[in-house]
Amino acid sequence: MSEIEKIDQTSWREKFVFDDKGLIPAIIQDYQDYAVLMLGYMNRESMTKTLETGLVTFWSRSRKKLWTKGETSGNFLLVKEILYDCDADALLIKAEAKGPTCHTGERSCFYRQLRPGESSQKNSLEK
Amino acid sequence: MSEIEKIDQTSWREKFVFDDKGLIPAIIQDYQDYAVLMLGYMNRESMTKTLETGLVTFWSRSRKKLWTKGETSGNFLLVKEILYDCDADALLIKAEAKGPTCHTGERSCFYRQLRPGESSQKNSLEK
Repeated sequence: MSEIEKIDQTSWREKFVFDDKGLIPAIIQDYQDYAVLMLGYMNRESMTKTLETGLVTFWSRSRKKLWTKGETSGNFLLVKEILYDCDADALLIKAEAKGPTCHTGERSCFYRQLRPGESSQKNSLEK
Repeated sequence: MSEIEKIDQTSWREKFVFDDKGLIPAIIQDYQDYAVLMLGYMNRESMTKTLETGLVTFWSRSRKKLWTKGETSGNFLLVKEILYDCDADALLIKAEAKGPTCHTGERSCFYRQLRPGESSQKNSLEK
């Protein structure tokens, strides 16, 4: 039994704060070079499966089903460490990525930068 | 005018996907050593202020007001780079932290780890 599997199943259920949709955001970070790979959402069922299998499993908000990252591509995310924030309403999961994480083939989903001058139109600022 | 200030104000308004509460999650990462410091939420107004000032400004969901991180503690987050993900519904902001980010005094809000055996009670797994 891995360390992940031995994590108690009750503890996090009482500790973590799920939102009104039963979700908690999970930041996925490469455990070696600390690159942020993606942000996904977990419900209690996907957290349970993540802890059982050691593979990062989200709740897909669009498909409304459990989604083990890599289940089609093979690019699984192996859980190395699970951290939670001071409000216990966000997770930081350090993982080993078995390939590119983004469906575009990019290593990280955060591959685009907001740059100056992307559009020439300029609106007045919101108040 | 800084690079941040020159970022076009229209572009992100059309690009970023805000949720049904008008919010987008923003991961804050140290720009030098890549530590994840916190997760906050921005609305369009807080994004505008972030771009105007170069200081990370969230929408406080609990206090329901703009919240420039560091406005009381002095521990501001200076924006270095803003990235957005493949769905444009999550942000990764690389920042320089002018002190501990967490209100507890910890450098990062993610200072607690889910460890094996935190509780001896074990529930049956959710189906």
